Amino acid sequence: MAETSVSNSRRRVLSGMRPTGKLHLGNYMGALYNWVRLQDQYDCFFFIADWHALTTDYANPGNVKEKCFEVALDFLAGGLDPEKCVIFRQSHVPEHASLHLLFSMFTPLGWLERVPTYKDQQEQLREKDLATYGFLGYPLLQAADILLYKPDFVPVGQDQVAHVELTREVARRFNQLYDSRWSEAIAQAESDKERIKAEVSANSLIELTFPEPQALLTPSPKLPGLDGRKMSKSYGNTLMLNESEADIRAKLKTMVTDPARVRRTDPGNPDVCPVFDLHKVFSPAEKQAEVREGCTTAGIGCIQCKGWLADNVVAELAPIQERRAKYEANPHLVTEILEAGAARAHAKAAASMKDALVALGME
Amino acid sequence: MAETSVSNSRRRVLSGMRPTGKLHLGNYMGALYNWVRLQDQYDCFFFIADWHALTTDYANPGNVKEKCFEVALDFLAGGLDPEKCVIFRQSHVPEHASLHLLFSMFTPLGWLERVPTYKDQQEQLREKDLATYGFLGYPLLQAADILLYKPDFVPVGQDQVAHVELTREVARRFNQLYDSRWSEAIAQAESDKERIKAEVSANSLIELTFPEPQALLTPSPKLPGLDGRKMSKSYGNTLMLNESEADIRAKLKTMVTDPARVRRTDPGNPDVCPVFDLHKVFSPAEKQAEVREGCTTAGIGCIQCKGWLADNVVAELAPIQERRAKYEANPHLVTEILEAGAARAHAKAAASMKDALVALGME
Ligand code: SF4
Ligand code: SF4
Repeated sequence: MAETSVSNSRRRVLSGMRPTGKLHLGNYMGALYNWVRLQDQYDCFFFIADWHALTTDYANPGNVKEKCFEVALDFLAGGLDPEKCVIFRQSHVPEHASLHLLFSMFTPLGWLERVPTYKDQQEQLREKDLATYGFLGYPLLQAADILLYKPDFVPVGQDQVAHVELTREVARRFNQLYDSRWSEAIAQAESDKERIKAEVSANSLIELTFPEPQALLTPSPKLPGLDGRKMSKSYGNTLMLNESEADIRAKLKTMVTDPARVRRTDPGNPDVCPVFDLHKVFSPAEKQAEVREGCTTAGIGCIQCKGWLADNVVAELAPIQERRAKYEANPHLVTEILEAGAARAHAKAAASMKDALVALGME
Repeated sequence: MAETSVSNSRRRVLSGMRPTGKLHLGNYMGALYNWVRLQDQYDCFFFIADWHALTTDYANPGNVKEKCFEVALDFLAGGLDPEKCVIFRQSHVPEHASLHLLFSMFTPLGWLERVPTYKDQQEQLREKDLATYGFLGYPLLQAADILLYKPDFVPVGQDQVAHVELTREVARRFNQLYDSRWSEAIAQAESDKERIKAEVSANSLIELTFPEPQALLTPSPKLPGLDGRKMSKSYGNTLMLNESEADIRAKLKTMVTDPARVRRTDPGNPDVCPVFDLHKVFSPAEKQAEVREGCTTAGIGCIQCKGWLADNVVAELAPIQERRAKYEANPHLVTEILEAGAARAHAKAAASMKDALVALGME
C-alpha cells in the first residue's frame, strides 16, 4: 500500500472462522484469543465463513444459520467488541461470491490442484465427498474473502500460510492483467534488470487494485483435549466456552495425565502430561513452577493439580460467560451486530468490487 | 411446476447471449429473431452474459461495458420490447455469482469435466488459455443463470442441449439434497418400484425449490458469411445489423457463389451457393423459386440475384435500423432499460436465492 495511506490510518487485518457451532477452548485459544488482542491495534474485519462450511459438509450442513449465531455469540463473549471491529457472516456480503467468480476466470486449475491442503484433506477426510468443484475452489474463495478488504495482514497458523501465498499470487495476477498503473510502471523499464526492479517496486509502492497482504503468523497453541489428543469437536474431548464451573471441574478430573504416574507416590513428568499443557496456557508462571516441583517430587497428587488448573480455567472463562449470559438474554443484539457488521463490510467490499470491475473494463 | 401456477401465469423463458459487441446477421437469426417471437408468448428474461465473456477471454476482455451497451442496443433494435420482456446484464444481478458458488459445493468435478463443450472448446480454441477454474465451471454458472429464474423453457441450439441437461441434473441434486418436500414424497414409498414412481412424480408435480427446465430447441439457421463459411466476427465475413444499405449492396456483390458458375451463360446450382442460403432466410418463397429457375437456366446473372437478395436484406433491416437510430440518439434510454431490467431480474433472483438458502438451512 502507498505509504501515505498507511500513515493516515491503522493497518487492516482480516480473518475468518467456520461456523462449527458453539466454540470450545481450542477454538478460543487458536484464534479468538488473538483476535481480541488484534482489535486494539488494527482495523479488524472478522467473518463467519459460512460458505466454507459447505466445502467439506455439503451433504449434511446442519442448521448453518443457528451455528453462525452460536459462533457470533462466542465471538462477543470472547471479547470481540463491535465498536472496535467488524463482525459479519460471509454469505451476507454478496461480493465474496462475485469476486470469487471474477478470480476464477484467470486462475489456472493447476494453482488450485497444487495447494497442499487439497490433497491432504482429501486423504484425511476420506469419509467425505471432496471431489467437488467447490472444494477445489475454496482457497480461491479465501483469496476473494481476503482481497475484498485489502488487508495489510492476515493472521494465520502455519497450516494456512500456503493459502495466503495463493492469495498473493491471485492479487499479483489481477494487477498484472488489468491494472494500468502496474503496466505503466513496468513499461518504463528498458532492460530486464530494470524490469525486475520495476516489478518489485510496482508491487510494493503503487497503490494497486489488490495490494498483496502479509501472513501474520500468530501463536496458536494446540490445546490437548481431555483424552490427550488435540482438542476437537469430532473427538468429543472438549471443554466448551460456555461450560459450567461444575462441568469444568468434573471433566478435568477425568483428564488423562502422565501415564507413568500410576500411584500418588510415583513422581510424574509434567513434560509428557496433557494437564500440564493446559497449565502452560491458563496458569501463571509461578503456579506452573509449583506444579512442576510438586509433580516431579510426588509432592502433589494429580487431583490437586487438576483442581488448580480448574481454578484458572474457571477464572479465564468467568468474564466470557458473563458476557455470553448478557447476549443470550438478548439474542436480538447478536442479530443486530451481525447486520450492522454486514453493512459495514458490504460498504468496503462493494468499493473493492467496483475497483476491480472498472480495472477490468466491465464498469 | 405445479399445475396451478402454470394455469395462473404464462410460462417462463430464459436465455442469454455473450457481449460480443455489435451484432451481425448471424447473431440475429441465431437467437434474437426467435427471442422477439418468444416475448409475445412467454414471460421472458433475456440477459447479456458478461461474466461468460471472461471464461474464454480473460486476458483481453476489451471494453466489456461498451460491448454490453452495443448488444443491448441491438436487442432493442432487433425488436425486444422492454414492456414485454426483462433485459439485463448478468453481472448486475449478484445472485448469479452466489448461486453458482452454492451449486459448486455439491457439483462433482467429473460432471463438469464430462460436458462435451469442455474438451471441444479446448481443442478448437488452442490459442486461448482455457485451463482455468472459471472455464471448467462455466456450465455450472449457466445452471445458476437459468435456475435463478425457474424458467419452464430454455431456448437453445443443438450444441447447448448438454448444458440444459447439466442444469437439470444440478436442480435435481439440489432438490434431493435439501428440499424437504422431495424427501417427504420419497419417504412414503414402500418398495423400490414405488420409490422410482415417487421420484418421477416428485420431480414433475411438487413445486420444488428448483423445477427442472426443458430445452426448447429453436430453429437457428447457420447463416453463411460473405466467404461462404459460417458468418462469424472472427472470420471478418459478416453483415452487421447496423450495416448501411450501400455497404450491404457492395458487400453482397463480393459474396462467393456456386464456384462452377464461371460465366454469365453457365447455369448455376443454388443448392451449393451461399447466396441462395441467404435467399432462403430473407426472400419470400416466390422469389426463391424465381432465383432457382433463373439460376439453373442461366436466365439471371449472379449480380442480379444478389441485387434481389440485397433488396430483401435491406427491407428486413430497415425497421431494425430505424429503432437503432432512435436508441443511438438517446443512449440514456438503453442504460435506463438495463437498470430497470436488472431491478426486475434481481427481485426474482433474490427470491430464488432466499428459497435456496432457507432449504439449505443457511437462512
Ligand atoms: S501432577 Fe499434574 S502435571 Fe503431574 S502428572 Fe499429575 S496432572 Fe500431570
Ligand atoms: S444466380 Fe444466385 S443462386 Fe445462382 S449461383 Fe449466382 S448467386 Fe448463386
